[in-house]
Amino acid sequence: MGQVTKLTLAYEGTRFAGWACQPAQRTVQDELERALATILREPVPTAVAGRTDAGVHAWAQVASYGHEALDPRSLNALLPDDVAVLSSEPMGEGFDARHSARSRTYCYRILTSRARSPFEHGRALHYPSRFERDALDACAAALLGRHDFTAFTPSETHHRRFDREVISAQWRENGDLLEFWIEADSFLRQMNRVLVGTMLEVAAGVRAAEDFTALLTGAPRSAAGRTAPAHGLYLAHVAYP
Amino acid sequence: MGQVTKLTLAYEGTRFAGWACQPAQRTVQDELERALATILREPVPTAVAGRTDAGVHAWAQVASYGHEALDPRSLNALLPDDVAVLSSEPMGEGFDARHSARSRTYCYRILTSRARSPFEHGRALHYPSRFERDALDACAAALLGRHDFTAFTPSETHHRRFDREVISAQWRENGDLLEFWIEADSFLRQMNRVLVGTMLEVAAGVRAAEDFTALLTGAPRSAAGRTAPAHGLYLAHVAYP
Repeated sequence: MGQVTKLTLAYEGTRFAGWACQPAQRTVQDELERALATILREPVPTAVAGRTDAGVHAWAQVASYGHEALDPRSLNALLPDDVAVLSSEPMGEGFDARHSARSRTYCYRILTSRARSPFEHGRALHYPSRFERDALDACAAALLGRHDFTAFTPSETHHRRFDREVISAQWRENGDLLEFWIEADSFLRQMNRVLVGTMLEVAAGVRAAEDFTALLTGAPRSAAGRTAPAHGLYLAHVAYP
Repeated sequence: MGQVTKLTLAYEGTRFAGWACQPAQRTVQDELERALATILREPVPTAVAGRTDAGVHAWAQVASYGHEALDPRSLNALLPDDVAVLSSEPMGEGFDARHSARSRTYCYRILTSRARSPFEHGRALHYPSRFERDALDACAAALLGRHDFTAFTPSETHHRRFDREVISAQWRENGDLLEFWIEADSFLRQMNRVLVGTMLEVAAGVRAAEDFTALLTGAPRSAAGRTAPAHGLYLAHVAYP
């Protein structure tokens, strides 16, 4: 055969225990593989660009499988309302959603209005505090380039290397929404959430910006800040050569 | 006392049986009046600008009650996640959220992309068909001014008068979202949803734009089109003198 298909998917992560199959849990991978197997009448293992955690959302996750491309409408008819296939493309034989990916881009959304929003419940972190925008920008600038992110992932880990290349990082304000956008070759587990949690401590004046920069050289996890909640995080884009 | 408070509220209508109290149903009015009574330690009846139906959302509903203004945070702490008080203002004695309102503005959101969106589930009508934008604009233009909207509300009705003054009406496109915005002095029950359902028939070429215009002079309900689903509709704004 040798056929490979690239799927782009969106999902609302609230009711999923993340991407990856886990026993007795509702996961996006399980739902997708079940729909693929229903149509293709055989087990269809998938590869994925970003193994998102429970509660994390995706605007454009990428998965691949070794079989022909299907009409997204056939798959969407079998998928639940909180996940949808946006596109389905036949690819060259060597394509793999995970290994072929050149970079991943994530966005962390923070609602800064005093009142919470019923429309952003589970979709943005409600954080109505004052924050120092300059301090956030200084942290984002410090992230650019290759660093050791040991401080930004749980100490019990399956990772073997802790250096990652940050291609772009910036904070953007859009009305009551404050967003952190970051593109890197790949990410350690929970890396974005610990980065955001730690930067918010800098923005609140609890931690100096220089202290944040010092964490990027292999400091232990205990030196960094809290892990921001999963529900503000979105896998926004995956780039391929 | 004579104190009156104006509350502006947002709610995600999916899990509500509409605004107005109904026996054994979860309604926004019930949740709000329960929160007010908990703080003020007496029953607190409310008036409302727009009695939205089950599934209809509000970005800025307005309610009033005859008591002192409270900190929105106290109320929000008692309200469920799908409703929030955005502001609370003391008003002059004669203020009533319903009778003082000069106009209401509603928005109907339609997702036109081929794939559905997990983030718009329950929040926009997914309608991936082709539509004639010119025909929609012609309908919107015909709505301006005072008309008899008998055709656009269920025939079993509590309304006594069927003429309403449309102040503005327009279709707007924003990426994959097609929105219908309308401001009128007030609205008949389900009027927006029957208007949108009928205009979509015009946009699909099933009904002529002149036929839509002819419905605005007191035609029976049976002459108009289908009722568009509640979940695309938002109460966007209420104006006061």
